[in-house]
Amino acid sequence: MFEATKVGRSVDKETFAAEQEGLRTELLAVQRELRQTDIPVVVLIAGVEGAGKGAVVNRLNEWLDTRGVQTFAFWDETDEERLRPRYWRFWRTLPPRGEMAILFGGWYLAPIEHRFQGICNDAELDAELTRIVEFERMLIQDGALIVKFWFHLSAKDQKKRLKELARDDRSRWKMLPDKTKFAEQYNLFEYVAERVIRHTDRGIAPWYLIEASDARYCDLTMGKTLLHAIKTRLSQPVSLEPAPSNGPDLPQVQSAQITVLDHLDLTLSLEREHYRRELKRLQAEINELAWQAYKEKRSIVLVFEGVDAGGKGGAISRITNAIDARLYRAIPIAAPTDEEKSHHYLWRFWRHIPRAGYITIYDRSWYGRVLVERVEGFASETDWRRAYAEINQFEEQLVEGGGMLFKFWVHISQDEQLRRFQDRESTPYKRYKITDEDWRNREKWPQYKAAVNEMVARTSTESASWTLIEGNDKPYARVKVLRTLCAGVKDALERGVCKPSGYIPCGEKRPATDGS
Amino acid sequence: MFEATKVGRSVDKETFAAEQEGLRTELLAVQRELRQTDIPVVVLIAGVEGAGKGAVVNRLNEWLDTRGVQTFAFWDETDEERLRPRYWRFWRTLPPRGEMAILFGGWYLAPIEHRFQGICNDAELDAELTRIVEFERMLIQDGALIVKFWFHLSAKDQKKRLKELARDDRSRWKMLPDKTKFAEQYNLFEYVAERVIRHTDRGIAPWYLIEASDARYCDLTMGKTLLHAIKTRLSQPVSLEPAPSNGPDLPQVQSAQITVLDHLDLTLSLEREHYRRELKRLQAEINELAWQAYKEKRSIVLVFEGVDAGGKGGAISRITNAIDARLYRAIPIAAPTDEEKSHHYLWRFWRHIPRAGYITIYDRSWYGRVLVERVEGFASETDWRRAYAEINQFEEQLVEGGGMLFKFWVHISQDEQLRRFQDRESTPYKRYKITDEDWRNREKWPQYKAAVNEMVARTSTESASWTLIEGNDKPYARVKVLRTLCAGVKDALERGVCKPSGYIPCGEKRPATDGS
Repeated sequence: MFEATKVGRSVDKETFAAEQEGLRTELLAVQRELRQTDIPVVVLIAGVEGAGKGAVVNRLNEWLDTRGVQTFAFWDETDEERLRPRYWRFWRTLPPRGEMAILFGGWYLAPIEHRFQGICNDAELDAELTRIVEFERMLIQDGALIVKFWFHLSAKDQKKRLKELARDDRSRWKMLPDKTKFAEQYNLFEYVAERVIRHTDRGIAPWYLIEASDARYCDLTMGKTLLHAIKTRLSQPVSLEPAPSNGPDLPQVQSAQITVLDHLDLTLSLEREHYRRELKRLQAEINELAWQAYKEKRSIVLVFEGVDAGGKGGAISRITNAIDARLYRAIPIAAPTDEEKSHHYLWRFWRHIPRAGYITIYDRSWYGRVLVERVEGFASETDWRRAYAEINQFEEQLVEGGGMLFKFWVHISQDEQLRRFQDRESTPYKRYKITDEDWRNREKWPQYKAAVNEMVARTSTESASWTLIEGNDKPYARVKVLRTLCAGVKDALERGVCKPSGYIPCGEKRPATDGS
Repeated sequence: MFEATKVGRSVDKETFAAEQEGLRTELLAVQRELRQTDIPVVVLIAGVEGAGKGAVVNRLNEWLDTRGVQTFAFWDETDEERLRPRYWRFWRTLPPRGEMAILFGGWYLAPIEHRFQGICNDAELDAELTRIVEFERMLIQDGALIVKFWFHLSAKDQKKRLKELARDDRSRWKMLPDKTKFAEQYNLFEYVAERVIRHTDRGIAPWYLIEASDARYCDLTMGKTLLHAIKTRLSQPVSLEPAPSNGPDLPQVQSAQITVLDHLDLTLSLEREHYRRELKRLQAEINELAWQAYKEKRSIVLVFEGVDAGGKGGAISRITNAIDARLYRAIPIAAPTDEEKSHHYLWRFWRHIPRAGYITIYDRSWYGRVLVERVEGFASETDWRRAYAEINQFEEQLVEGGGMLFKFWVHISQDEQLRRFQDRESTPYKRYKITDEDWRNREKWPQYKAAVNEMVARTSTESASWTLIEGNDKPYARVKVLRTLCAGVKDALERGVCKPSGYIPCGEKRPATDGS
């Protein structure tokens, strides 16, 4: 694969000078054009040690208008990053629409290093690469342009370059421990690199392999490639690979008729005295369990969705009143801010993912994509259909390192909703809760039911199943939520963290290979 | 001071039930009204151990519409927080306009604990309290409402309460180490509390002392007080204490005539070969110094301001090209996002403050407040006049724990600016840099000069002085910037961290007293 990067290409000083000015002008022009679009651009810089990635990034920053470009490296992990799902730190760096991020290694850094150091094997590496492919596809389907560069050197050139670097005062190289490793194990590194590139070289996010032995050739080729990639993206809409299939489309057939919601026994209720006792008992239990989860550094994410006036708020407050306020954060999902709007729709939820040991309660959530956005037509059918898989992958990451995820759909009958709407309108301190929109939503009951049904069917995965809550009787609903939660947390704590077979455990420091 | 909190006030169940509903309705109403305003509300909850602060917060969350209210505790410091100036974590929690934040202890927690444990003495405590007073005043002058509650118990009641808590499964109390300390040293704690309250009890941000022995009395009083405070704030503009004086107003007298800028020798220049040599040498030096600062965990903040086309960008890129891209982040300051607009104007700069060991380069900065906002009239005279002191206090915090701060004003003559504007218009890849606004700004040259003069006079403090750069000759300017920077970093590294005499050193873990 790397043969073409070892032929000794170079560019002389005059050619470089002559071509640089035009290239620069054009880069600035597309950058300005970009700013008017909703395309975020991610430039990934990877390659063998000694290939001069730092110099390439500097050159890029020199050519581009630095307003609208941010550079990120991923060597020095903070505990805020270490204590969250691995991809949290990447989400932090994703550029807003119209801007660019230059990432050193990005999500490729850890997999390559881990395989190179023998921390994982080929199969585990491949599993991670599959995740990367999905992640990149998701960003691209959201409009992003991802340009991936791999800078390569022959063994001989690398050896020579590393020798030079060791002598050069200005190089980062001399800060590194394990200096010789890379050159000595050139073949292994190349093997890993080839495997990674082969698995992740997709038409929508191709790798560009660049020979790095001559800096001028390297810079010019990189610049021209980037220019071409942005121009191409500007001139045509994203050409997508077929979206991942959602599997056989069973729910559609029955969607208008019987749904999972019809199986709920909404007559279930709890006698008042029994409720009081149970509530007290369960609140004490969840208080203790939350502390225990804190001590064992297990994060908990709660998702509440439900019919308007279904009683989400009441159920949530029975939990928050029981748990120490230091341990949880309740995030009500309202209209996104403009920073949120300028990112992928999952970005605003990633922002609030709890650290290990803490709890986030989402009052409405990413499921808005397949509920209100679907029913109201805010998201296209392609968009919301795709969201099921995106959400499943997102949630998979939430639970991977021992995180817990509980999803509640709080349901009531249409009659009960009417009663509650009327009650809200007549109770002074509840009146603010009811708006015209609630009445409008009510008219779309069947569409919402179908959407909920499909949501439950498609996103009830092994590690993240839905609990449907019969909400007509508030005491019953609250106790069922608390009971489910307590049982689930207890169970998860007893089972302990079942680490995914092999790959980069979340919350553990990866071995330092890079100056730290 | 605390006598009034030991008289055994209580409220019976019926009264509480009767008053609660009305209070709740009113709280929700003012909260909705609040949302239409640009007032951020900060509710501080402090008091003796065992006073039931957690329960009060839970009650508040029950009464309020949780959308628009966030609760924050400050016990479990992350390294992202620990490695930045102390107040960074508070800035993170400040609510946007129209919303509320409930803070457990907030900026009072550490001072009280430190004094209580004898880590600092009274004088050091007072110095910190002065900072707090300034900080709160700044927020209030920006429109914030700060409501501070102190919940108190008599020694006897506290003892009883702590005993109960130790038995109660649901209390946080049993998670705490050093359980007995507080009760045993009740008098010392009360002494510290009184000192803190006395020093920080200002008309614009008063303390409300509440007797906490009866939960119903406590909740009701807190709720009514909060309601009253919000209502009052809604009905009248902020009534401010007189703004801190800027000192004798010397610069005004001479402002239109001779300024510090007139003393710059803009004919200074550097011969090309000399420039090349010096640049190379200095870039190598700053590269090494940046690594050294990283190893010694010293942060560096660079601020670049200057005349349009003065050459800020060129000077910055000579630095960024030399420093490893992992160590710095360059932040161009353009129009604020809506999240930024909904906070105090310093908030958007606090966001990017580097961790210990890292570098942030601000391409334009908080000085916009006293430059463009002053000259263009975007900020009122009161606002920009106040900004000098606010900025000095902000910068004091940046350097406190060993951080370094370098501020550059890059200046050119009006003729030189004209030449550069014309050059930009005729060079394809520079054309984007010049806009109508640049030409308009140019017409306000005298006003800008006066503003710069006053800025330099008022914000050149011991630890954060301005360096004026003669920019007509670009090589000279770039070398002077690099030389100043290298000398300054070197000097700071040699001097080591001169810890402020006593108080809570930044970057060190404060002793855990709270469950962690």
